[in-house]
Amino acid sequence: MADPRFFSVAGPFNAAEMARRSGAVIAGAARADLLLRDVAPLDTAGPDQLSWLDNRKYLAQFRTTGAGAVFVQPGLAGQAPPGVTLLLTEQPYRAYAVAAQAFYPEPPPVPGIAPGAVVDPSARLGEGTAVEANAVIGAGVEIGRRCLIGANSVIGAASVLGDDVRVGANVSISHALIGARVRLYPGVRIGQDGFGFALDPKGHVKVPQLGRVIIGDDVEIGANSTVDRGAGPDTVIGAGTMIDNLVQIGHNVKIGRGCVLVAQAGIAGSTRLGDHVMMGAQSGMIGHLVIGSGARIAGQSGVMRDIGPGESVMGYPASPIKEFFRQHATLLRLAKRKSE
Amino acid sequence: MADPRFFSVAGPFNAAEMARRSGAVIAGAARADLLLRDVAPLDTAGPDQLSWLDNRKYLAQFRTTGAGAVFVQPGLAGQAPPGVTLLLTEQPYRAYAVAAQAFYPEPPPVPGIAPGAVVDPSARLGEGTAVEANAVIGAGVEIGRRCLIGANSVIGAASVLGDDVRVGANVSISHALIGARVRLYPGVRIGQDGFGFALDPKGHVKVPQLGRVIIGDDVEIGANSTVDRGAGPDTVIGAGTMIDNLVQIGHNVKIGRGCVLVAQAGIAGSTRLGDHVMMGAQSGMIGHLVIGSGARIAGQSGVMRDIGPGESVMGYPASPIKEFFRQHATLLRLAKRKSE
Amino acid sequence: MADPRFFSVAGPFNAAEMARRSGAVIAGAARADLLLRDVAPLDTAGPDQLSWLDNRKYLAQFRTTGAGAVFVQPGLAGQAPPGVTLLLTEQPYRAYAVAAQAFYPEPPPVPGIAPGAVVDPSARLGEGTAVEANAVIGAGVEIGRRCLIGANSVIGAASVLGDDVRVGANVSISHALIGARVRLYPGVRIGQDGFGFALDPKGHVKVPQLGRVIIGDDVEIGANSTVDRGAGPDTVIGAGTMIDNLVQIGHNVKIGRGCVLVAQAGIAGSTRLGDHVMMGAQSGMIGHLVIGSGARIAGQSGVMRDIGPGESVMGYPASPIKEFFRQHATLLRLAKRKSE
Repeated sequence: MADPRFFSVAGPFNAAEMARRSGAVIAGAARADLLLRDVAPLDTAGPDQLSWLDNRKYLAQFRTTGAGAVFVQPGLAGQAPPGVTLLLTEQPYRAYAVAAQAFYPEPPPVPGIAPGAVVDPSARLGEGTAVEANAVIGAGVEIGRRCLIGANSVIGAASVLGDDVRVGANVSISHALIGARVRLYPGVRIGQDGFGFALDPKGHVKVPQLGRVIIGDDVEIGANSTVDRGAGPDTVIGAGTMIDNLVQIGHNVKIGRGCVLVAQAGIAGSTRLGDHVMMGAQSGMIGHLVIGSGARIAGQSGVMRDIGPGESVMGYPASPIKEFFRQHATLLRLAKRKSE
Repeated sequence: MADPRFFSVAGPFNAAEMARRSGAVIAGAARADLLLRDVAPLDTAGPDQLSWLDNRKYLAQFRTTGAGAVFVQPGLAGQAPPGVTLLLTEQPYRAYAVAAQAFYPEPPPVPGIAPGAVVDPSARLGEGTAVEANAVIGAGVEIGRRCLIGANSVIGAASVLGDDVRVGANVSISHALIGARVRLYPGVRIGQDGFGFALDPKGHVKVPQLGRVIIGDDVEIGANSTVDRGAGPDTVIGAGTMIDNLVQIGHNVKIGRGCVLVAQAGIAGSTRLGDHVMMGAQSGMIGHLVIGSGARIAGQSGVMRDIGPGESVMGYPASPIKEFFRQHATLLRLAKRKSE
Repeated sequence: MADPRFFSVAGPFNAAEMARRSGAVIAGAARADLLLRDVAPLDTAGPDQLSWLDNRKYLAQFRTTGAGAVFVQPGLAGQAPPGVTLLLTEQPYRAYAVAAQAFYPEPPPVPGIAPGAVVDPSARLGEGTAVEANAVIGAGVEIGRRCLIGANSVIGAASVLGDDVRVGANVSISHALIGARVRLYPGVRIGQDGFGFALDPKGHVKVPQLGRVIIGDDVEIGANSTVDRGAGPDTVIGAGTMIDNLVQIGHNVKIGRGCVLVAQAGIAGSTRLGDHVMMGAQSGMIGHLVIGSGARIAGQSGVMRDIGPGESVMGYPASPIKEFFRQHATLLRLAKRKSE
């Protein structure tokens, strides 16, 4: 059970309700009215708890689990211990996510402006929005309904945030138009000047950065990540894209929908990603590339050319993943031979 | 045109004035009195807008541009469409930068101390300086004229900032002497303890970090970058050096003038860079190296030895760039052969 | 001497006292009562200053040093210039660290709550604790004795900090239980949601992150580093572990005691490190690995498999370090042959 100092559990919910919410089908012991009081992993779950099996590595735990109910794929249902209510779904982890959201709903913001917050009189705040202590909101800012602006965060003049946006502590935003249900974790930096200047041995000359940052609905951006505004065109992050911590997005970058960028990845200026691109941790892309939808970039890879849709690449410079492993195997074999 | 919610356009300026400011020579249709109202890219610029051609990739756009005036190299002037006023210069991008600064000058700080800011009575602020809401300025701090200290930033005791310094939101500075016209973007960390301790299995022993950070004039440091103070000697960043986001500068590092450090690069303690060194994104240098002036380090490279002046290196460990590509080509060829 | 604007020197101490505190033995000129007024490097130290020799590279400086006293290994004592008091120890750098701490003790916090700080009435602050300007402390927070909470930092509801913890400026903490004598440098992010969601082409589904961050005693975490809270289990950092700037620690990671993680390193979710593991700068580990105690990971390496205790690895994918260099040498030789 989650530490009650930090988390409040909702519920209980019966198995039928959990099945309904997650789109699962009840089977096994099939007690639709089984009362479930929490979620828990297979190895610790008890008779009033709901668990899930999404990785065959945990099959042994599944066979002996004490959980009252388990989300599981239909093909594995036969291995359940007796008495367990099964909630059959092809996506048990997704179903767990939905159930855990039900048991641990995020508390809504407590509307109002906390002590020490400085809100410009020309800013507009939607109904139900909370501004935490010492946050600073500039002139002409528009914030939607039920938003949470974290303590000590700064929203620069004229930025626009949609409904249900959650901004963590110590975030700064400027020159940005942000959709609904976006989450910006602590320390995120949105909208500062891109890295643009004309090289000159007598002194580099700064190029004014005249674009914005446009963030679609349902985007998450992890702690201390940075998104520079465009130089003239905009920097754009498509709806539903998930960005981890310490990621760098350069000016004019366009990211499609549903992409996943893992921690410490970086994208240089003007590169364009399609939808559902996956970038592994610490990987990088040079500027002005075109990356097709569904492309997958392995962690630490360095992408220096366009990548086609659905292509998987790895290495430095990044090659198709099979070629990367063939190169690596070749080198291992040659190195071994020389040392014999 | 830049979004007027975020940017105010100045001007108009006539072509002669733009030529004068950027050092260009008027040619082509040569209407010195042509009134220009904005800057814009070649493909969207209209008859009262000023554009530029700095990359031959956009030559086709140049040939059909509707721009009233264009910065262009003399050798390409013959390809201009009729009626365009040409502003000839060997550095069109630099000229564009100067022009864009004229059309979009940064508004000067609005002097004064905003609500919630906490300024120690012993701090000295120069004329025209603005301290934004909830910023904190410590004892004995000296800040020059026309500076902007961003909301929720913290300037620790006794630090010194020159004239016209711009500190973004949520920045922290301590133990630092900072020159004129320096820009620190949001979330920058200057002057905290370096990573210094004596290794000891019974418990590492912290080494007091007794130096400072010295930053020359006209330096820019990008969002969420970190510059540790020296351990005894100082950490030094030379005038005119441009540093991108999420860059790490270790204690005692000395960086020369006019260097360019791209996002997520890192320099370990006590390494010294000459002038005009270029470090690509996500590249790193181990400690105690000497890197000659004009050296170029490709993105993601790992530099583990001294680099001579003007040398270009790439890879891990970094090799001269030609050798790196020869190594890579060799590996590709061997891998291909094995797979045939 | 350290800049008196930023540092106050304590003392003087006599050589006997410095020997006693550092565990060294007096030899050489052996003036136990020699009064020492500061620490300084060999090349600049004067007759009332204490220096150290821990790297044979500086042996020439040692032979001609003007220092009054020097920490040195017994085997090198014979090379000292006449008249120098020697403080013999096998760990001269550790001894220097102890001496420098004596000369430059950190000033204790000045207890109290500074202007603009917002402290929830239900928070409990120990005796001697200082809360700097504009910091925000949430409901139910417990902070130990003699802690320093830096300006503009945010401690989220119910977090617990031990005695003598130092939190820098602009830090945010939530869902965390933090031991004694921990130091969090400016911009550190502790306890935000881990990067957890069920992938779904129709829209990734967020998985509530129901764990905490548990930090042992004497841990240091560098500027702008990020530590996500666990997804259900906790994220744990063992006592005495030193973490540099811009490091990423994913959810559910367990780090043992006395580990050293250099700048810009990253550890993906659920990976477990033993004690005294060393991770070089910009290195990374994928998730769900087990890394044995005493393992050493070279800078920029990409670890994709479990690593045994005491093993040293390098490269991408990381190999045993000897194999890495053999691979590299093989490639250099083959590339050279092709080019002849």
